[in-house]
Amino acid sequence: MYRVDLNCDMGESFGAYKMGTDEEILSFVTSANIACGFHAGDPATMRKTVKHALEKGVGIGAHPGLPDLAGFGRRNMDISPQEAYDMVVYQIGSLYGFVKAEGASMQHVKPHGALYNMAAKSPELSKAIAEAVYKVDPELILFGLSGSELVKAGEAIGLRTANEVFADRTYQQDGTLTSRRQPDALLTDHDKAVQQVVRMVKEGKVLSQQGVDVAIKADTVCIHGDGPYALVFARQIRELLEIQGVTVQAVRYK
Amino acid sequence: MYRVDLNCDMGESFGAYKMGTDEEILSFVTSANIACGFHAGDPATMRKTVKHALEKGVGIGAHPGLPDLAGFGRRNMDISPQEAYDMVVYQIGSLYGFVKAEGASMQHVKPHGALYNMAAKSPELSKAIAEAVYKVDPELILFGLSGSELVKAGEAIGLRTANEVFADRTYQQDGTLTSRRQPDALLTDHDKAVQQVVRMVKEGKVLSQQGVDVAIKADTVCIHGDGPYALVFARQIRELLEIQGVTVQAVRYK
Amino acid sequence: MYRVDLNCDMGESFGAYKMGTDEEILSFVTSANIACGFHAGDPATMRKTVKHALEKGVGIGAHPGLPDLAGFGRRNMDISPQEAYDMVVYQIGSLYGFVKAEGASMQHVKPHGALYNMAAKSPELSKAIAEAVYKVDPELILFGLSGSELVKAGEAIGLRTANEVFADRTYQQDGTLTSRRQPDALLTDHDKAVQQVVRMVKEGKVLSQQGVDVAIKADTVCIHGDGPYALVFARQIRELLEIQGVTVQAVRYK
Amino acid sequence: MYRVDLNCDMGESFGAYKMGTDEEILSFVTSANIACGFHAGDPATMRKTVKHALEKGVGIGAHPGLPDLAGFGRRNMDISPQEAYDMVVYQIGSLYGFVKAEGASMQHVKPHGALYNMAAKSPELSKAIAEAVYKVDPELILFGLSGSELVKAGEAIGLRTANEVFADRTYQQDGTLTSRRQPDALLTDHDKAVQQVVRMVKEGKVLSQQGVDVAIKADTVCIHGDGPYALVFARQIRELLEIQGVTVQAVRYK
Repeated sequence: MYRVDLNCDMGESFGAYKMGTDEEILSFVTSANIACGFHAGDPATMRKTVKHALEKGVGIGAHPGLPDLAGFGRRNMDISPQEAYDMVVYQIGSLYGFVKAEGASMQHVKPHGALYNMAAKSPELSKAIAEAVYKVDPELILFGLSGSELVKAGEAIGLRTANEVFADRTYQQDGTLTSRRQPDALLTDHDKAVQQVVRMVKEGKVLSQQGVDVAIKADTVCIHGDGPYALVFARQIRELLEIQGVTVQAVRYK
Repeated sequence: MYRVDLNCDMGESFGAYKMGTDEEILSFVTSANIACGFHAGDPATMRKTVKHALEKGVGIGAHPGLPDLAGFGRRNMDISPQEAYDMVVYQIGSLYGFVKAEGASMQHVKPHGALYNMAAKSPELSKAIAEAVYKVDPELILFGLSGSELVKAGEAIGLRTANEVFADRTYQQDGTLTSRRQPDALLTDHDKAVQQVVRMVKEGKVLSQQGVDVAIKADTVCIHGDGPYALVFARQIRELLEIQGVTVQAVRYK
Repeated sequence: MYRVDLNCDMGESFGAYKMGTDEEILSFVTSANIACGFHAGDPATMRKTVKHALEKGVGIGAHPGLPDLAGFGRRNMDISPQEAYDMVVYQIGSLYGFVKAEGASMQHVKPHGALYNMAAKSPELSKAIAEAVYKVDPELILFGLSGSELVKAGEAIGLRTANEVFADRTYQQDGTLTSRRQPDALLTDHDKAVQQVVRMVKEGKVLSQQGVDVAIKADTVCIHGDGPYALVFARQIRELLEIQGVTVQAVRYK
Repeated sequence: MYRVDLNCDMGESFGAYKMGTDEEILSFVTSANIACGFHAGDPATMRKTVKHALEKGVGIGAHPGLPDLAGFGRRNMDISPQEAYDMVVYQIGSLYGFVKAEGASMQHVKPHGALYNMAAKSPELSKAIAEAVYKVDPELILFGLSGSELVKAGEAIGLRTANEVFADRTYQQDGTLTSRRQPDALLTDHDKAVQQVVRMVKEGKVLSQQGVDVAIKADTVCIHGDGPYALVFARQIRELLEIQGVTVQAVRYK
């Protein structure tokens, strides 16, 4: 039987600034990565997003980012492993407050943006992040780029991990994502994107930009919650996965 | 038998900015109110302060403040009860991350500065803060100004509370603190300050500026961690209390 | 001959967060109040907004606010006059950098949100703000609520001032705005709102909620740049004013 | 005749957090690099520091940094040249507000910390920074690491520049500073440090760690304002330079 989780970043509004279509997208995904106030999000948004996720039975995850609201956590910063550890513990904790206040439990942690990307390649940062997650709660599941250093560090410390793949990104022969600086980084054709996901889940393979199949593990698929077609696309992926016999459910059930 | 807790605000450093004498003062107090990053403090400081407090067996408390680093959380802000709830849940949670990472538990919550002062007089803010504390963890002890709305709100929701008194502040006939805008707000004579504490603890009374005794409940005494005589004064208070037969211990043991 | 300025708050985007319809609304207004990074806005947004305003020949103004991005500068904060002075000098300066980089000049200063409202009633804050504006550049025009303490303080120090009125707000018998906490605070009927503006400009009167005419000075009208009908409404006001023989132009031409 | 400027970073306090010995060090230096609120500093500190510098006749400079208060602007961030341009324009402007409010003028701009270091090696960032300075005011003098890309970019755009050297850092054969990660990065012997400065100023040479003399241009020497010996050291450098016949004066007089 095939199974996969669909996750989406959310809770990214800040004060008077609204972002995303959280309530709508929650109908299609099974795991929610909730911003914790460093790169996006604020206490009120966190509270509301936790409640909405619980109402839809969606798994709740902390989505810690770099302390760079102005750059939405997308700019690499030269932080030390200790700093990574500290900011991840802090942010998991902050979301934990809201989760506990609702009598619920947290399912996972997925680093955001530049922190996610830097960790994917850095064993040192990954080890620090995995340790932060483990020490706060060893039952948490760590999400990382499929096959990345972050997933390896999570496994090494004894965490459950989820290998994440992307529906709308293309892949290289070595299994990494095509850099966003390349013109062919994005899969803009929805049908192709959906087919890529189905194949990654069912066959464990993805066709790289070099025309060669690459092995890839797909425990969870990242869905984007903004952009004009986000909702349509999310629905499409979910429906087609189910038609193809793939069970779409939160990673905690696996 | 007489008992009292001595508490001190700490963990107020931020990045390259150092504040306080946390490690030294931890030898004299029994409860530590640790800043959570809104008015002061940062993740690294929180981690270190939690560790130091645990090493000394001092009770750990969250010290949530207004989101006003530039004003050190001392400027009143016109926040709604919902905003107070949200910022308190967030900040307790953030410290909880570090406490949980050390395998420890949190003892109490004491709002900081303007949030503490506004809550003392506002039943609405106090109710929101008490609810935040209760929902995150009903075992937490809520610290508030002795006899204040915050203490009342904590009791009303079913929390254990600790009435806080000040060694170096003078009191009014109605049991409130003399406003800092008054010239006689501070007790600068250490001996008088220590005597005032002993009397509040043992007799439940304080001599007001109007020359009349006022009933006051003293579960915990606020000690300041900065200023040239902070350490000397902290030691003095502790020693004299013990000489006078008062057991100085963290509120959780009461 | 009748003349009036139409002003609009803009440049309120922050990082990845977009707000307002700045480029479109610039076709209808004559003065732009540009956020300076404290309550909203960021350096990139400031640069772009200054350029767009210059392209449309719209008067450029600094729109300093409280240091409260999370609250969009709408929450009163208990700041001292010295703090108000400092934050206004800083923010005017920051915008001045972009204005000077474009070889242009700044026309005015209009405090934002809670700073504007607190100043309207406080002679002390108003004096500090007026002094900040005057000391940075005595040629700047200070915008304030019509008849407010801020306008008085500006005049007292020797600044040109502009009395600001609101199209979509109702007025009280004493010339103040109806509090937003009242159900009748807003004029939702566009036609009535436009008529109110025309009358304030041409007759110097507004019909208060108590049914009595009140004298009011209208040098500039505040137009809102967000909400579904903002652009339609802005166009309507401008067109009707011109049909009624009112010259709509930036305050600096008066 | 030999001339040199002594500069010092200052105005780095933030809210309740105090840093540096600004008033004292102003007696020994000739140029002040004043933090502008991104990596350190706040409006009140900027106002006071500008006043103190004027009282001592010290040249005033903007000291723009990365938006990283938590990291004191010392952590590299992956910013674009456009972002560098924007943050430098903003910060120069913000200080300009205080300088103009005092009826004074600004002498120079010196980027801070990671921005300074990244610019030293990056022609793209340096060009953006030089353009920001030039467009705000072409009379400003740009300070950069001696021989760096930043100095080159400043000269290319037509700015006056000042090559900066360090008293207490050692140099490599290629004229760069020894990395702080190396054990021999710092010259801890005050006498050697002072001698190194004198030689850089008078002979245009510095003895590298490889034992070879390297040509170096020294228009201004960076003095540190914190640390236990900062004041003693600053006085020593100034006195010895003057004894050796070097005129110590602000770069604007050159």
